[in-house]
This record gives sequence, C-alpha cells and structure tokens, in this order.
Amino acid sequence: MTAEVTQITSGSLIAADKVEGTSVYNRNGDKLGTVDDIMLDKVSGRAIYAIMSFGGFLGLGEKYHPLPWSTLTYDENKGGFVVDLDKEMLENAPSFDRDEDFQWTSDYGKQVDKYYDAPTYWS
Amino acid sequence: MTAEVTQITSGSLIAADKVEGTSVYNRNGDKLGTVDDIMLDKVSGRAIYAIMSFGGFLGLGEKYHPLPWSTLTYDENKGGFVVDLDKEMLENAPSFDRDEDFQWTSDYGKQVDKYYDAPTYWS
Repeated sequence: MTAEVTQITSGSLIAADKVEGTSVYNRNGDKLGTVDDIMLDKVSGRAIYAIMSFGGFLGLGEKYHPLPWSTLTYDENKGGFVVDLDKEMLENAPSFDRDEDFQWTSDYGKQVDKYYDAPTYWS
Repeated sequence: MTAEVTQITSGSLIAADKVEGTSVYNRNGDKLGTVDDIMLDKVSGRAIYAIMSFGGFLGLGEKYHPLPWSTLTYDENKGGFVVDLDKEMLENAPSFDRDEDFQWTSDYGKQVDKYYDAPTYWS
C-alpha cells in the first residue's frame, strides 16, 4: 500500500466518466478494447476492476472482461491503459455477456484474480 | 492505508456508473445532493473526490462541489452516502459552475482538502 501513496502525484486525477471509454493496449501497442466501467470498493473508494469490452459488433455478442486494476498501467503518451496480456489470454479469460443479468460473487472475483495472478480482493 | 485494507469486505463492490446518481445525506437524513462524478487517481485507482451536484434548477446555476472521499461514509440502509456537514458549510464550500471550463489545479485541490480538514491528496 505504501507504493500506492508514493505513486500519487499532482495532475494524475481523472474523472471516472472519462476513464470510461479509455482504450486498453497490449505491450505491442495493439488496441485490445475499451474500459466500459470501473468496479470500486464502496468503503475505501479503491478501483478494484476495470471492466473492459472487446469484440462484438454494434454491441451484439459483446463480452465484458473484468481486469484487476493492478494489471493496468496508465500511459500518458498513449492516453490509455497498457496491459501485459496477449489476445489469446484475454479470449480465454473470465468474461460475461452484455445482456446477461450478471451478479458479482466472491467466487467469480477470486477466479478473475487467480486467472491474472493478481493479489485477490476477496477475503 | 492499513485501515482501508481491513475495511474492504466482499460484496462492497459497486460500478462507478452506479455511484453516479447516488444520493448524499447529512447526519439528520436530509438529502444534500447527488454524486455526479468521481475523481480518481489514474495510477493508484483511488477515488479522491466525489463531485456532488446540488441546488440549481434543470441544470441552471447548478454547482459542483468536490468532496474529499474521506468525508463520505456509505450507508447500506440508505443506499447512499452520509457526510457530517450542514447545508451552510456546503454553501460556503469551494465549488465550480456547471458551464465553467473548469481545470483542476493543486492549489484548488489543497483549498478543498483544507476546507473539509481532510488529509491532502496534493504534495
């Protein structure tokens, strides 16, 4: 947690409204998708997951991929997030459908965190 | 920061999209306004301010009040945030107009944090 504090610098504030729609790239600079929403912890106000949408056509068959926030790095030059993931890894990742009446459970959350080898949010 | 970690419990995830529109109440249960947006630190993903809108009529003369996230407590029963502030304190608080081309500066941020006696985000 200490690392977080020292990383905070003036001028790195962004409105949640503006994060939504931000592009997500891989290390090669290929665009993987777009941040559709952010899942926050209500109490601490920490962003836990970015919900990325990719694939689909005009919203049909669009998939939502929750990415643990720790997998994302903001790149000022690109004006977007960079993740160290290839498309194949994303295609096999936990996802849910746009139209599904999706409910977060701790089991689902743990599965996501494990897939990306991220520190788990769920106790 | 340690306090934050221990406060995190399963099931307290919420989508940023849903925080927007959440009511803000004072300790007496009076509605003060509505969360319009959240300002996040891009690097750490921490919510730093909730931007509350209150007053105005059909968007005319509406004011935006940034509230340090630490002033907000989420109340599950109310389904909204509670702040320990009265209307007078809010009316005199730093705010900006809806139509203004507003730019965050560290001076403005420090002024906000100081007004609410909140730990400052700005170094």
